[in-house]
Amino acid sequence: MSLTHLDKHGRAHMVDVGHKDETQREAIATGRMGMQAETLRLIQVDGLPKGDVLAVAQVAGIMAAKKTHDLVPMCHPLMLTKVSLDFLPHLPDEADPSAYIEITGTVRTTGKTGVEMEALTAVTVAGLTIYDMCKAVDRGMRLDAVRLVKKTGGKSGDWTYEL
Amino acid sequence: MSLTHLDKHGRAHMVDVGHKDETQREAIATGRMGMQAETLRLIQVDGLPKGDVLAVAQVAGIMAAKKTHDLVPMCHPLMLTKVSLDFLPHLPDEADPSAYIEITGTVRTTGKTGVEMEALTAVTVAGLTIYDMCKAVDRGMRLDAVRLVKKTGGKSGDWTYEL
Amino acid sequence: MSLTHLDKHGRAHMVDVGHKDETQREAIATGRMGMQAETLRLIQVDGLPKGDVLAVAQVAGIMAAKKTHDLVPMCHPLMLTKVSLDFLPHLPDEADPSAYIEITGTVRTTGKTGVEMEALTAVTVAGLTIYDMCKAVDRGMRLDAVRLVKKTGGKSGDWTYEL
Amino acid sequence: MSLTHLDKHGRAHMVDVGHKDETQREAIATGRMGMQAETLRLIQVDGLPKGDVLAVAQVAGIMAAKKTHDLVPMCHPLMLTKVSLDFLPHLPDEADPSAYIEITGTVRTTGKTGVEMEALTAVTVAGLTIYDMCKAVDRGMRLDAVRLVKKTGGKSGDWTYEL
Amino acid sequence: MSLTHLDKHGRAHMVDVGHKDETQREAIATGRMGMQAETLRLIQVDGLPKGDVLAVAQVAGIMAAKKTHDLVPMCHPLMLTKVSLDFLPHLPDEADPSAYIEITGTVRTTGKTGVEMEALTAVTVAGLTIYDMCKAVDRGMRLDAVRLVKKTGGKSGDWTYEL
Amino acid sequence: MSLTHLDKHGRAHMVDVGHKDETQREAIATGRMGMQAETLRLIQVDGLPKGDVLAVAQVAGIMAAKKTHDLVPMCHPLMLTKVSLDFLPHLPDEADPSAYIEITGTVRTTGKTGVEMEALTAVTVAGLTIYDMCKAVDRGMRLDAVRLVKKTGGKSGDWTYEL
Repeated sequence: MSLTHLDKHGRAHMVDVGHKDETQREAIATGRMGMQAETLRLIQVDGLPKGDVLAVAQVAGIMAAKKTHDLVPMCHPLMLTKVSLDFLPHLPDEADPSAYIEITGTVRTTGKTGVEMEALTAVTVAGLTIYDMCKAVDRGMRLDAVRLVKKTGGKSGDWTYEL
Repeated sequence: MSLTHLDKHGRAHMVDVGHKDETQREAIATGRMGMQAETLRLIQVDGLPKGDVLAVAQVAGIMAAKKTHDLVPMCHPLMLTKVSLDFLPHLPDEADPSAYIEITGTVRTTGKTGVEMEALTAVTVAGLTIYDMCKAVDRGMRLDAVRLVKKTGGKSGDWTYEL
Repeated sequence: MSLTHLDKHGRAHMVDVGHKDETQREAIATGRMGMQAETLRLIQVDGLPKGDVLAVAQVAGIMAAKKTHDLVPMCHPLMLTKVSLDFLPHLPDEADPSAYIEITGTVRTTGKTGVEMEALTAVTVAGLTIYDMCKAVDRGMRLDAVRLVKKTGGKSGDWTYEL
Repeated sequence: MSLTHLDKHGRAHMVDVGHKDETQREAIATGRMGMQAETLRLIQVDGLPKGDVLAVAQVAGIMAAKKTHDLVPMCHPLMLTKVSLDFLPHLPDEADPSAYIEITGTVRTTGKTGVEMEALTAVTVAGLTIYDMCKAVDRGMRLDAVRLVKKTGGKSGDWTYEL
Repeated sequence: MSLTHLDKHGRAHMVDVGHKDETQREAIATGRMGMQAETLRLIQVDGLPKGDVLAVAQVAGIMAAKKTHDLVPMCHPLMLTKVSLDFLPHLPDEADPSAYIEITGTVRTTGKTGVEMEALTAVTVAGLTIYDMCKAVDRGMRLDAVRLVKKTGGKSGDWTYEL
Repeated sequence: MSLTHLDKHGRAHMVDVGHKDETQREAIATGRMGMQAETLRLIQVDGLPKGDVLAVAQVAGIMAAKKTHDLVPMCHPLMLTKVSLDFLPHLPDEADPSAYIEITGTVRTTGKTGVEMEALTAVTVAGLTIYDMCKAVDRGMRLDAVRLVKKTGGKSGDWTYEL
């Protein structure tokens, strides 16, 4: 078992994927943006019925997915064929007293390598954008549980996060 | 109390900071990249004494800080005067059985608005880069507790995250 | 009278503005995205109040303003202090049988040179984004009357487009 | 009939094109940069045959075509196989008393989706660059009639702008 | 014999490669970063056994290869499948009294055109980064002998630099 | 004497320049693009007076200077106030039988740190662009003698390359 981005001498490089097949691949990632309940209510009320904060975060996350190879040094450039983001707000209730927005990013490509990093990048930049747009009222927001949920396609096969 | 990035009609815009003074500002953010203990040991052993995984993550985080206004839509461009990243590995012990790397990002500017987003961006992209470089051995890594720890300077004054 | 971006030998360069004062500057530009009346109604119904076509165009225009110096070769980089975009839909009426969205971009900086190009870039990229999001139903849309409306600040003084 | 970039809930996303065939596609767009006759003469004398204003605009438009997916949020990244720009100056004559440069952009790809946005982006950024390089002598220039002229290839078939 | 990036009228364009086959291609480029012997020793000692200066230069060169089409105007975007950089330090000896680091960049793609420019870009940006990180102690460093060493694949066939 | 981009633990960071004064700074760099005499003649005939190879290289170098902080990891972003490039062709003569183009880049800023890297980046990317546009006829071209010639301004004072 070894870290494939490190070459024989311990130096990083962008691993050769030239021999891999072009296959359909998908990755789904999630993250949770925690905030005060009042902040979440402001997002829901102020940002039009469906709220501009999330509209901006959605555009930001989608655009960021396309920049992944420009952010994560050893990532290969890929022709993304689909990027989408979903936001699921959770207001405090008896089962869970916390307020947060669950962010889910889905990315697809037809390519030689997977899109895990693109899905994770979409989720984190969407989260950062929510922070930016609400920080004037809630500087203590935090992003948690950013992780890959599932990937399909490619030689290493399918994978699902086990809780 | 209102969300300053939304104008009167609920649309987003980049708020006017032209009237603000140019002052020295600093922001510190942190995040925690959780992984299997074995993965953390590989990073420490394989990546040379101090390990290339972290060297790459450090460069990635610093470069990402400079791209913040290109990632987060309503962020103002700023002349960053300092960016640094620190990594503190934690191996499982009796007090805390989890393995993780604590990432801390510090950013400074002399400008009209703060660098909170830049510090948070540095931390998250460093985290994503660690994920990318280790994902072949540990796809279940997750990034938690990404938050602003402290900011100083600017009209809104100093602020510290209260645990 | 000469073209200041061309040097003595007819070659382009980024003109020296180092001796100029840093002053507050503003530029306002507009453009008109023409379309079928049915397309405009779809934007208003499907979008506003859900408003997504214009929400996406707005984010795109604001982000593009920040990239102006990366698009227009001889533009100086500038610290923009404000960017906003407004959209005014016009449905056919007796006075004017055409359907269009009037796009207005406003940009401010405190700097050594003006933000005319940033305002024009915001407007055109917002227009291109509207085209992109509606092209499946109306490939014949066109962007007209992209022009600087007004600029204030700087040594060359204020200027207003005369109709 | 619906706007394909909006999902079921009215939110924007990058539509899935993974199932589409990779075919040869071409798009041609045009726009018209209007100016004072004197400005056009200056471009021709100072520039053509030294031609630098148009040489710079041409490089800017070609480079911008490659950035389209970074400017227009829901655009897919594409491997462009050709980009070219042509400029046709028109000096006032009896039939048409206006002075302008007709800009034509042609883009080709072998891909899963069309290059309309790339052709339109090349034309508009070339136009903005002409404005930038001449604005010291003619701030009233305006860009009109930016539109798709023709597209070929892809499932939706060929399309031509009907005057 | 003609310069293929210039069209019939002497204007530059991105040449049409749509008809070319997608084949595996590789390019290798080198360059030599000359410096004072003392500077080279500092890199070797201070930057950990293999030294952080080179770790940063390596990341910079790899990331730059991915930006080639955004730097060199007439370059086609390409899906790089591999990028690596090697550094070979040379301390003064009897045969050669100069001190330098030989930089070698290797790039591969499966595409319609070659990756010569990507390999050359990786080498030069790695060189610039070494300069940047050492300039406080040795402003007189210089980059020499940047050239393509070898290319394979594509219709024009294999090619090797002849000394 | 130490390498200022490496912190106490040998890790790279973007050094703090917040305490430095904003002063006028200039840097001049040069490089030499060697080629076959026939290639240089083609550039001069096909290009100059139509000059397109150099016109494209000039735009590329100027745009690259503005991207320096996005290419060289530890570079600070700076508001460049001037960028220019000059090309001096040398055809073989008795004193020097080689054919080359001497590239000179001049960059100015009013800022807290110098523009050496920006001048060097302008020169190298201009050189790479010449290579790209001529490589179909002369793959053996090489870039030599890339170096800082002079810098003025800043606390470390003026500096000139001593031959």
